[in-house]
Amino acid sequence: MIEQRRRFTAKEYGQRQARVREAMRSQHIELLISCDPANMYWLTGYDGWSFYVPQAVVMDADQTLFIFLRPMDGSGAELTTDLAGDDIVVYPESCIQSPDSHPMEFLAETLKERGLEKKRTGVEKDGYYLSVRALETLRATLAGATFHDTSQLVGRLRAVKSARELDYMNAAGKIVEAVYEKIMDIAEPGMRKNDLIAEICHTAIRGTDDCFGDYTSIVPIIGVGEESRAAHMTWDGQLLEREVGMFFELAGAHARYHCPCSRTLYFGTPPAKYYEIEQVINETIAVTLEAFRPGNSCADVADVFYTTLKKLGYEKEARYAYPIGVSYPPDWGEHTMSVRSGDHTLLEANMTFHLMSALWFDDWGFETTESLVVTEQGGQCLSNVPRRLLVK
Amino acid sequence: MIEQRRRFTAKEYGQRQARVREAMRSQHIELLISCDPANMYWLTGYDGWSFYVPQAVVMDADQTLFIFLRPMDGSGAELTTDLAGDDIVVYPESCIQSPDSHPMEFLAETLKERGLEKKRTGVEKDGYYLSVRALETLRATLAGATFHDTSQLVGRLRAVKSARELDYMNAAGKIVEAVYEKIMDIAEPGMRKNDLIAEICHTAIRGTDDCFGDYTSIVPIIGVGEESRAAHMTWDGQLLEREVGMFFELAGAHARYHCPCSRTLYFGTPPAKYYEIEQVINETIAVTLEAFRPGNSCADVADVFYTTLKKLGYEKEARYAYPIGVSYPPDWGEHTMSVRSGDHTLLEANMTFHLMSALWFDDWGFETTESLVVTEQGGQCLSNVPRRLLVK
Repeated sequence: MIEQRRRFTAKEYGQRQARVREAMRSQHIELLISCDPANMYWLTGYDGWSFYVPQAVVMDADQTLFIFLRPMDGSGAELTTDLAGDDIVVYPESCIQSPDSHPMEFLAETLKERGLEKKRTGVEKDGYYLSVRALETLRATLAGATFHDTSQLVGRLRAVKSARELDYMNAAGKIVEAVYEKIMDIAEPGMRKNDLIAEICHTAIRGTDDCFGDYTSIVPIIGVGEESRAAHMTWDGQLLEREVGMFFELAGAHARYHCPCSRTLYFGTPPAKYYEIEQVINETIAVTLEAFRPGNSCADVADVFYTTLKKLGYEKEARYAYPIGVSYPPDWGEHTMSVRSGDHTLLEANMTFHLMSALWFDDWGFETTESLVVTEQGGQCLSNVPRRLLVK
Repeated sequence: MIEQRRRFTAKEYGQRQARVREAMRSQHIELLISCDPANMYWLTGYDGWSFYVPQAVVMDADQTLFIFLRPMDGSGAELTTDLAGDDIVVYPESCIQSPDSHPMEFLAETLKERGLEKKRTGVEKDGYYLSVRALETLRATLAGATFHDTSQLVGRLRAVKSARELDYMNAAGKIVEAVYEKIMDIAEPGMRKNDLIAEICHTAIRGTDDCFGDYTSIVPIIGVGEESRAAHMTWDGQLLEREVGMFFELAGAHARYHCPCSRTLYFGTPPAKYYEIEQVINETIAVTLEAFRPGNSCADVADVFYTTLKKLGYEKEARYAYPIGVSYPPDWGEHTMSVRSGDHTLLEANMTFHLMSALWFDDWGFETTESLVVTEQGGQCLSNVPRRLLVK
């Protein structure tokens, strides 16, 4: 039994921290300052919409681990983590969005107090939540430290999911199933786009009887009619018309774990090209699911996909799949390996991916995507939404 | 009449760009690379959930203005902006989340082709969407350029709202009114927290008959019972119980413009402390609304607030208010001026602020906040939600 607001056992957090410390030692990183909210959550359980201000989990390769937050968020750490006392460090409110001082000045003070100011220090240079200014402030205030890019250090360790993580992702899968059932129930010509999205978000947040729906790291993407040629449009108030196609890129989420799943819907009688692309994408999914086995590399799977797609007469420039799991806005990918040529990362059992099997053309687009877990029997989908063109 | 997906006239975008160019000249910035999606939207109309990969609006102080995007997002620029042809520049898909290449290498190539590679270049060092790696890549590939912090250059120009911008913010105000009406209709003990949030999001996205509800840059924040001592908790699946208080920090949004508004709700008979804090906060709001007039400075308003609060026996460390308008996740503030001591920015008519008049204590918290526009008659609220402790 896990206490309210604790998503994993203390033992699981301890194992994760130990694996991070091992990776730090092997990469000669003495101090890790992780500002990625997904890493912070995975390492400690800390959960709150506070990542729009500077914050971090700071750890060395031995015993030190503390969280660094805005004062009004310290209580959130008490509620969601096992940290307490000196392991929750808060900085002055006066440096929030101030031109005169920056929270990282106070982190530097804290590191000096603890003798951690001259370390080989890892920071996530490729993340959203360590700003250029934050790192410049650290460099200016910690002259004895050196800074190294650890953008993928924690993320790579998140790739293989534990049993409980898979439980959460399966719950997210059930939620996205409910979302598509809702769409098939209520979508109809004459609705405003936003009214359909309102129903989607309602179902996604209700979740299931057992599992609340969490917010998704990307809001529902909808491409309707000619707008379906663009990959990342969000809704407006236009009416959905008859004889028009639209794709949805959606996810279910539970306890910050995601299961994305995209489908295409047509109101009326779909033109032949819709059925043609449905078949093309479904064939690529069928053969690549077979390839998502331990021992194959990302590039091996990519080769299966791009070869099959080419044989069927189509091409795609973008990568085919990316790892998923815990995430915070603005993205639900793990930003580590990619399923494309040149990425020789070996697949392991219980890695999880989103197959981004969408095709966009000059004047329309089509999405059927699946999220999966890698098993000895190939990729197993995390949700069971009819894998076909939806027609109403 | 504005075409679908165009939120402002070409004339208004032109005026904005001219003001930015004027600011660039006065700050000796020859080239601006703006990666902030709110700035990109305000300058060109570009709107899409694509800010999780590198992108920018690039402009010089003369005629050049182009948008730099991932290939699959170029269509989105065609749909949402007046840019076309060479003014929509896309980079190779192969550098998306790749350890081997970065989109900024391709931006550097583009700048060289256009003779813009040796400029005094402004970048937003305090933003979420210019990563450390992105700037390091620019520095490495543009040896002749110098890089200067223009985090607030565009944002400061966004502070005073146009008539159409105020229309959008008033629409957002109507939406948040509808959200609180919904809460008062349906919130009751025994609901799961997420089921209440599902209704809130449903109402917020439906919006009004005239105006679609857009996604908000912060998801609904809810602090229930003992969790109300934390400022930024999101929902889970716990049941809402009788004789418990909770605050909501919510916004309405339309066309990316926001109107935040927070209230506190109690199920049952509120303890005296709830009414006491209701009165304290309402008194501070009443006196500070009077002070939000052109010619007063942010510090002047802050002085009114903190003095009044102290007279009433309370203290608050955090700043009192911040500017709002267009925004994208993870924050709905404009990240420029702050209403606190030391910020001597003068208020001007049609600036818009969120009054963050919340108080948190060791074991609970209370929020009543308002969004307002600065007028000669003082701050005028953008929404009309009963300014009181809500009781059911």
